[in-house]
Amino acid sequence: MASDCIFCKIVRGELLSFKIYEDDNTLAFLDIRPVNPGHTLVVPKRHSANIFDVSKDSWPEVAETVRIVALGVEKATAADGVNINMNNREHAGQVVDHLHVHIIPRFKGDGFRLWPQTPYKEGEAAKVQEKIKAQITQPPEV
Amino acid sequence: MASDCIFCKIVRGELLSFKIYEDDNTLAFLDIRPVNPGHTLVVPKRHSANIFDVSKDSWPEVAETVRIVALGVEKATAADGVNINMNNREHAGQVVDHLHVHIIPRFKGDGFRLWPQTPYKEGEAAKVQEKIKAQITQPPEV
Repeated sequence: MASDCIFCKIVRGELLSFKIYEDDNTLAFLDIRPVNPGHTLVVPKRHSANIFDVSKDSWPEVAETVRIVALGVEKATAADGVNINMNNREHAGQVVDHLHVHIIPRFKGDGFRLWPQTPYKEGEAAKVQEKIKAQITQPPEV
Repeated sequence: MASDCIFCKIVRGELLSFKIYEDDNTLAFLDIRPVNPGHTLVVPKRHSANIFDVSKDSWPEVAETVRIVALGVEKATAADGVNINMNNREHAGQVVDHLHVHIIPRFKGDGFRLWPQTPYKEGEAAKVQEKIKAQITQPPEV
């Protein structure tokens, strides 16, 4: 629990939220500034900053709540699909430093676009592959 | 296993990929058209279409591989953060109908922007909240 964290305050009930779902370890509530109405956030009750900081035990609890809530969000909003997005650290767009997963209902023609993607140059992919593989030969236990 | 699914073909080794990480149930490989170099996809080996279709058992296996690989991608690319994104159904930008999670390394000043968010109108959030809650009183077992 971080005393100044606004999501910890929501978990403790010190700040009001539009709660969607709650279990022992996780909480889901509406983002009050949605991309589309029904945009929901899922957080672990135990404070962690992001994907790099969350424990091996806490993360699957968050993932399961994301799955449950995504099904409900799509049905309730009659959406045509759902994006599940998570921003880790400031330069990835994270604003509140308490791990949270965005569930965003999408509607045909709503106009939101994914980021452009471009092919690798010759030989570049294999180099990147080796660099990443070298970092994950030992699965990290947080 | 879906015979025409390109990610099933990658899992079976019938299509080549730049593999990053593999365990009994999941596979991670480079997106060959990255948002930024190091952009990696995580898939379950057992075919499922999206978050609405994946089994309760398979999803946490995917989530754990996402966590492990995200740590490796950030370190290997010396990124300033990472986005973890999942597009479910065509109108959310899903192109390959085999569940996959994008791990996108981000760099200060790379210019990618999140979607704009706007506040709810008075009373709208509470209505949306009730509609979604009504859909998730019984956590679904897939």
